[in-house]
Amino acid sequence: MNLSIKFMKNLKNEIQSQEISKKIINLIDNSERILITSHENPDGDSIGSQLALGGFLRDQKKTFWILNHGNVPDKYKFIDPNGFIQTEEIDVGINPDLVIVVECPNLNRVGWVKRFIGDHTPIINIDHHQDNQNFGTLNFIDTSRAAVAEMIFDLISFNGYIPDRNCANALFLAIYTDTGRFRHDSTTPECLRKSARLLELGADPKAIADHAYYNYPAPALKLLGMVLSKLELRLNGRVCYLTVTADDIKATGANIADIEGIIDYGLFVEGVKVSLLFKQLADDEIRVGFRCREGFDILPIARQFGGGGHHHAAGCSAPGTLECVKISMLEILRRMLDGSQ
Amino acid sequence: MNLSIKFMKNLKNEIQSQEISKKIINLIDNSERILITSHENPDGDSIGSQLALGGFLRDQKKTFWILNHGNVPDKYKFIDPNGFIQTEEIDVGINPDLVIVVECPNLNRVGWVKRFIGDHTPIINIDHHQDNQNFGTLNFIDTSRAAVAEMIFDLISFNGYIPDRNCANALFLAIYTDTGRFRHDSTTPECLRKSARLLELGADPKAIADHAYYNYPAPALKLLGMVLSKLELRLNGRVCYLTVTADDIKATGANIADIEGIIDYGLFVEGVKVSLLFKQLADDEIRVGFRCREGFDILPIARQFGGGGHHHAAGCSAPGTLECVKISMLEILRRMLDGSQ
Repeated sequence: MNLSIKFMKNLKNEIQSQEISKKIINLIDNSERILITSHENPDGDSIGSQLALGGFLRDQKKTFWILNHGNVPDKYKFIDPNGFIQTEEIDVGINPDLVIVVECPNLNRVGWVKRFIGDHTPIINIDHHQDNQNFGTLNFIDTSRAAVAEMIFDLISFNGYIPDRNCANALFLAIYTDTGRFRHDSTTPECLRKSARLLELGADPKAIADHAYYNYPAPALKLLGMVLSKLELRLNGRVCYLTVTADDIKATGANIADIEGIIDYGLFVEGVKVSLLFKQLADDEIRVGFRCREGFDILPIARQFGGGGHHHAAGCSAPGTLECVKISMLEILRRMLDGSQ
Repeated sequence: MNLSIKFMKNLKNEIQSQEISKKIINLIDNSERILITSHENPDGDSIGSQLALGGFLRDQKKTFWILNHGNVPDKYKFIDPNGFIQTEEIDVGINPDLVIVVECPNLNRVGWVKRFIGDHTPIINIDHHQDNQNFGTLNFIDTSRAAVAEMIFDLISFNGYIPDRNCANALFLAIYTDTGRFRHDSTTPECLRKSARLLELGADPKAIADHAYYNYPAPALKLLGMVLSKLELRLNGRVCYLTVTADDIKATGANIADIEGIIDYGLFVEGVKVSLLFKQLADDEIRVGFRCREGFDILPIARQFGGGGHHHAAGCSAPGTLECVKISMLEILRRMLDGSQ
């Protein structure tokens, strides 16, 4: 992009951010009972963003609730020392006059929390997703941000508020995990500078990284090990097959939830373009997960088997034995990789 | 630390950095043939720092060589697209009138490169290690820096030089790897801000992270898997035993060098304070590696068996069978963990 166009675009963005931030702060000032929520099964960015907002509202002497559909993952529980986030369905005493929804592209994804959002309750919608449906009374959407936590940090700092250590930790965790430790292409100079500021405010990167990335239950690590020890390369090393069976789960004492994330390791093998994870958890069906590197698209293959997902991450089910499914996938993968499909 | 004392200390540090930088730049200006080197078996910080210096010297129209004892690890080779770093022992045509040694606490650690350092050749010594022996004609030592690359970035920017994309990548890699992806306690706001600037100069965090951390040879990942699948917890989950045998190496097709780093995974299990890796590569001897978390000290145990190392990372050899060594370690570990040793 031409530099002066880029500068003008940034400037326009900045002015819009300032305008919407002012409106949001005004609306918060004029509200008393504020419900904060996010998409179901919250991730690092939604958890950190909500907690930082919660700390801010507490210091503004507001009544507030953070309600989430689905659990906070164990690895992120340390970031909420005050127990702000409630994930149990409760019914009493929640009567917000303002709702703030963060990191949630549409209102259905808040799950059971939707029950507390009255037809006429104003909604502030803060998100960085491209497919956000602008469902708010006020919509603060910026797809250039690596994490919603960046927007929350700007917002609560708007009138000179200085986040405390817990709040800084929550925001750092959000940025750190949503950028995959400053790895994803979404990583910007600005999010690194904000993280620097959060360190000055007391964020502890070591504690955050250790909880979020170096904190496996032993059975989960054993299961990962078992799957990796059996990895198979196909098509001259361009495809990695990973397999997990009900027997593996049983032998390691792991949970089915521990399978999550294992598929990514297939792409960590040098030269691999596509990683497939075959899950044989019941006898009559194989679940297949797909991941691929930039420049490839595995969605059509998943769709061919009645599945779906995204271009780089998809899944489907296939009938048959493990060996049959592996073989039948291979020809389709070969055509895709050779560009003849 | 009192804030004004901290401010004064930073200011003093800054003034000293400016003074020594000026002297270093003058010395470089007045030299023509410059040898850059670092400690043997260079790591991410030494490689990135040397390459950035090399790019700077090239643009100053200096003749320069980067010579290193020991190989550049495969995962870092992409960062040197110009092939600046030479690791082969060559003898011809290297006659420096200035030597710059980076990230190297003493001059013996440069290995065979020492042969090219004449008794009267001036040496610039740039390091962040506490035990640096100030062996240079000019010594630029700052133990507060997360990576030597930070100091190099300051130095080459001293007169307004702007690093190109390769140089920015090299410096980012150095900071990223030396802080363990902004995880170690050495991570500072300043190193995050410098990284932000390096992004603006073209550094590509995704490519760097993928090469440095997500780029396993398949046999190495299989070996890691095999070891993890057999992990054992001891002493109520405070100790993790990992085991690797010659059979594992053979079965996976891995190299002995692929064992490096596996021991760290023991500490990634929740609750584990001490990780031990037992290597049975020959029949008559077990090599034992130790790692422990902050607040523990495994050096005395390694010493008890005639080994050595650091307080948090040590090793020793022990005679006997695998099972015997594991049992004999256990009682000693119990005493250490219960604080009765």
